Amino acid sequence: MTIDPERLQPMANAIRALTMDAVQEANSGHPGMPMGMADVATVLWDRHLKFDPARPDWDDRDRFVLSAGHGSMLIYSLLHLSGYAKPTIDDIRKFRQLNGPCAGHPENFLLEGVECTTGPLGQGLAMAVGMAIAERHLNAKFGDELVDHRTWVVAGDGCLMEGINHEAIGLAGHLNLDRLIVLWDDNAITIDGSTDLSTSENIKARYEATGWHIVECDGHDFEDIDRALEEAKEANRPSLVACRTVIGKGAPNKQGTSATHGAPLGPEEIAAARDNLDWDAEPFDIPSEILADWRSTGDRGRDELGAWEKRLDDSHHADAYERHMDEIGDLAGSALQAHIQKLAADPVKVATRKASELALEPLTEAIPQMIGGSADLTGSNNTKTSHTDPITADDLSGRYVYYGIREFGMAAAMNGMALHGGVIPYGGTFLIFSDYCRNAIRLSALQQAGVVYVMTHDSIGLGEDGPTHQPIEQVMSLRLIPNLNVFRPCDAIETAECWALALQTPETPSVLALSRQGLPQLRGEGDEDWNSESNRCAKGAYRVRPAKARRQVVLLATGSEVALAMECAEQLEEHAIGADVVSMPCLELFDEQPADYRADLIPDDALIISIEAGATMGWERYTGRKGLNIGLDRFGASAPASDLFDYFGFTADAIVPQIQNILND
Amino acid sequence: MTIDPERLQPMANAIRALTMDAVQEANSGHPGMPMGMADVATVLWDRHLKFDPARPDWDDRDRFVLSAGHGSMLIYSLLHLSGYAKPTIDDIRKFRQLNGPCAGHPENFLLEGVECTTGPLGQGLAMAVGMAIAERHLNAKFGDELVDHRTWVVAGDGCLMEGINHEAIGLAGHLNLDRLIVLWDDNAITIDGSTDLSTSENIKARYEATGWHIVECDGHDFEDIDRALEEAKEANRPSLVACRTVIGKGAPNKQGTSATHGAPLGPEEIAAARDNLDWDAEPFDIPSEILADWRSTGDRGRDELGAWEKRLDDSHHADAYERHMDEIGDLAGSALQAHIQKLAADPVKVATRKASELALEPLTEAIPQMIGGSADLTGSNNTKTSHTDPITADDLSGRYVYYGIREFGMAAAMNGMALHGGVIPYGGTFLIFSDYCRNAIRLSALQQAGVVYVMTHDSIGLGEDGPTHQPIEQVMSLRLIPNLNVFRPCDAIETAECWALALQTPETPSVLALSRQGLPQLRGEGDEDWNSESNRCAKGAYRVRPAKARRQVVLLATGSEVALAMECAEQLEEHAIGADVVSMPCLELFDEQPADYRADLIPDDALIISIEAGATMGWERYTGRKGLNIGLDRFGASAPASDLFDYFGFTADAIVPQIQNILND
Repeated sequence: MTIDPERLQPMANAIRALTMDAVQEANSGHPGMPMGMADVATVLWDRHLKFDPARPDWDDRDRFVLSAGHGSMLIYSLLHLSGYAKPTIDDIRKFRQLNGPCAGHPENFLLEGVECTTGPLGQGLAMAVGMAIAERHLNAKFGDELVDHRTWVVAGDGCLMEGINHEAIGLAGHLNLDRLIVLWDDNAITIDGSTDLSTSENIKARYEATGWHIVECDGHDFEDIDRALEEAKEANRPSLVACRTVIGKGAPNKQGTSATHGAPLGPEEIAAARDNLDWDAEPFDIPSEILADWRSTGDRGRDELGAWEKRLDDSHHADAYERHMDEIGDLAGSALQAHIQKLAADPVKVATRKASELALEPLTEAIPQMIGGSADLTGSNNTKTSHTDPITADDLSGRYVYYGIREFGMAAAMNGMALHGGVIPYGGTFLIFSDYCRNAIRLSALQQAGVVYVMTHDSIGLGEDGPTHQPIEQVMSLRLIPNLNVFRPCDAIETAECWALALQTPETPSVLALSRQGLPQLRGEGDEDWNSESNRCAKGAYRVRPAKARRQVVLLATGSEVALAMECAEQLEEHAIGADVVSMPCLELFDEQPADYRADLIPDDALIISIEAGATMGWERYTGRKGLNIGLDRFGASAPASDLFDYFGFTADAIVPQIQNILND
Repeated sequence: MTIDPERLQPMANAIRALTMDAVQEANSGHPGMPMGMADVATVLWDRHLKFDPARPDWDDRDRFVLSAGHGSMLIYSLLHLSGYAKPTIDDIRKFRQLNGPCAGHPENFLLEGVECTTGPLGQGLAMAVGMAIAERHLNAKFGDELVDHRTWVVAGDGCLMEGINHEAIGLAGHLNLDRLIVLWDDNAITIDGSTDLSTSENIKARYEATGWHIVECDGHDFEDIDRALEEAKEANRPSLVACRTVIGKGAPNKQGTSATHGAPLGPEEIAAARDNLDWDAEPFDIPSEILADWRSTGDRGRDELGAWEKRLDDSHHADAYERHMDEIGDLAGSALQAHIQKLAADPVKVATRKASELALEPLTEAIPQMIGGSADLTGSNNTKTSHTDPITADDLSGRYVYYGIREFGMAAAMNGMALHGGVIPYGGTFLIFSDYCRNAIRLSALQQAGVVYVMTHDSIGLGEDGPTHQPIEQVMSLRLIPNLNVFRPCDAIETAECWALALQTPETPSVLALSRQGLPQLRGEGDEDWNSESNRCAKGAYRVRPAKARRQVVLLATGSEVALAMECAEQLEEHAIGADVVSMPCLELFDEQPADYRADLIPDDALIISIEAGATMGWERYTGRKGLNIGLDRFGASAPASDLFDYFGFTADAIVPQIQNILND
């Protein structure tokens, strides 16, 4: 099929028209990018992207990621025009309005065909790297006949200037993800004005230095675009397609300026643009011939889907493939059963990061979808097991990614892997560096992606590395993120239970905050009510020790401080002060419990005390204004961990007198 | 002076010996980097770095930044050997121990000569970019005779792999900071093993693509090192010196492997290394001849300092220079006096981001040290004033940095600028992107650097851009960072007051969380107790409206929700329910007030209600467990702001009945 500009130009102009109309109607939005990239997107959709609008969930579809998410009208136009069930033209009319699916930035949970939520710049591209890893990994397992698709990204100068870009393309280059193609909207404009204001780099040379293939095109010449996309597909490296474009192309007076970036063009300029583009149709109306051309863009994909389904039927892999792509249900719980029973019978005193490794061993054996990794702290995060061989450029069938010193890139890649499907990513770094990847953790939560973050060295218990490496506010600040479960287990059994919970909530990501230092095992067969089948962490908090004397005190604690709370309770009982100890591995799950369960654990008639080696703010939710919050509201210091716990008052000898004083008042 | 390896080799080995001994004594630490970079550091210190150990605070000293902060024994060795008052040899014996100055990672607040706190990888280099900006800016103002120094950085593969590296070197290349020289410890090893595990990039080509000068050397050949440093100094671009080194150089069995990176070498390997290095002295003992050679390295600097002092004496700039380098005291308060009086007389309804711009106008006029900027959101953050011309590669005398889409790089650069002295940096981005630069904000706080973060679009009030751009947990999560003041002003007067407070605490950084949307002015001459000279925000919270009927309710609110609280109070009073409204622009300052002040505002005998369009967790500190927390514990949505405030219940009609229900119970 040869290139027919007379067919393609009106198709591209349909994107421009819809974009101008929707942004004007909403009286807010970003017309510049969709108008600038309309021609490139049209060629991609018409001649290259593998998709079937009727089957947006088809595993082997190409993934299209609009990393420059502010240009959301591009993807809404494409989905609508090519015949996806949503968005309808009415949805587009309600662009950026409450309860519509056409949000300001594209949200994966609102529309099929939106592969991920983008807007925070750079992360779309970095998630695409994860999708491309997932694709090549599954391809290595199941072969070309079942897994053979590309990941396409539209990225702007902002995506390329963000630091995460460096991490993402470094990883992609290193793993030689040749099915990843980035279409760079090279329009030389940012919000503040010309890119000359803030950057002077040679982007193509930089990508080349990182192992990418580079190709350029005139982003408004259909033949040239097609040639470049074809070349990118043929390349045996990840490709950057530098598309020279004019931002806001089609708006005769504003195109090429930052004025088109983030504001409606206004009725006058829209009229001039319609003139300029020979576009006569009413606002939001697409002439039927043009719409028919657009609807035909899915034909290729429908045929390819048919062929793929036939191959799947014929494949001897079919069962294994379908099982692998399915949800895992409660596989994690059953995989850990024997491990937990063994711990109960033979208690161990280990760091919870080590306990995590012990749990990962049976988990990664039972769940082949799990792909681990670490941002260059494998031995410290204890994330690698005997079942997870490295993923390398030569062999992507492995299950362990050496992410390098790229925390943000790792987290975003894991989001992409989880959203791709067929893999369950977990990855490690020090908890303090949750700061480096915080917005990607937030995007896990917003996108409902079941990533598991293994965050070790979770307090001043880290010791000598000092305040830059000691989490203070991190645990509590992660708890503030909606739809994120933060687990801080106190021993080896809780760690296994929390791992099970993390894998049982595929739509809620999890952070495991794990200790560097060894912790005694507090639970096991010695417990009166021991039952290896019930996961006590599932309610977020539970009474790990009931008061012996009349209960006057309830000690709430997490992680390494639960053992300390037990010690405090023992001392208090010596003074005939009855003290419950409540372990609270997950505040989010506890907050979801019925009021009576919560009131039973945290009653009104006792002094409530929280103990956690971190920021105290937030604990007042449970202790009230008259409770006692033992924590750390300053930066730590460099010293051996035990010295620090002493120095900062995390000892029964320091805490118990404070409790007695309050009770005596 | 020619290179004399026989003099330099023992000097370098002194670093190796101290490093091995200190790490062994502490039984933790990182010997690999100091041993690998000992030869390079010796040449730098002996022949290039401009410093006087007796005057570590000399403005015109070269800055030395150990970006690979885990190799802290390198800088402790250098400071001790070259004759700084601290660390003493006893301090080094107490490496990584409580209350010693030789922390696991170097801390600027513990030792002079440590220019900044490093350890979180990549940020040292990025702070150095800020120092180099400050130097060139002051040079442009005061000339070579007063300001003419270099910034030297030691960076490892980790620093270069982190995303922030891309942002930092992009900015440095763009501004052509030719006084910045990065010594890359090119040892091909990371914690997980060979760099081949995780990266394949051509680092030199990447730096070249970003406008840097590249030079290489054998990091263990003194002549070659000297040649390379000389070439870097001569270059008219920022320079990367690729120093090919062997990690742990000198330890015969472990050198060149990741085993030397982060663990003591052990007594056997240390013995073998001493043998290998011909080092006979006792642990922690430096032979007097070698120490004398080291002490002479400061001679050049002492002479240069003398010459500089003479030039300063003779300079017609002397007064202006000294005034400029001095602290500003309460200049901010006085600069805003007239502005606040005008607002009090003529109230304005503006967004607080706009109010910030109105305050910045007189501030930047009165305080020439202020250098503004934005991460490509100048028009949205309202950070540019008529007094702040752009800083460009051709003219660094300006006072406004177009940081580009580099939030993390901007924040780290501002830290470097503040630590350099002579400039007071402030910079803007959307509040949501505090996530992108969070660890640099933390480092502002830890380093006691008086940076001001102008974070606009501070809630769902952002509107249509939707959940990826709407802060939910950001305000509260920033409050968790120690030594950081988070201000959320409610109107134009509070915004000016908060700006004054931010500039009055040079050792505590500030975040100004500012609205996108217009807010009514709540204070002014109409107030009974109006007094333009007292800054009511200084106590963090104050009663903005006292109850009329008997007080049953206290409404606590911040920012855009204070006006809503006022509305709620009015409605409550209509039902004869007396309601105080307390504006709480800064919780941190409020928490520092005496108990009686706090109890007066938040009494025990009233229902306490918090209203803030963000995460509620944390507000229980003030409302207790029985109070009411109006907030948002889920992600936002894309819609016009007023629709969102309605939808999420931020209206008096939605809130007042909840209050009545509680009172009726």
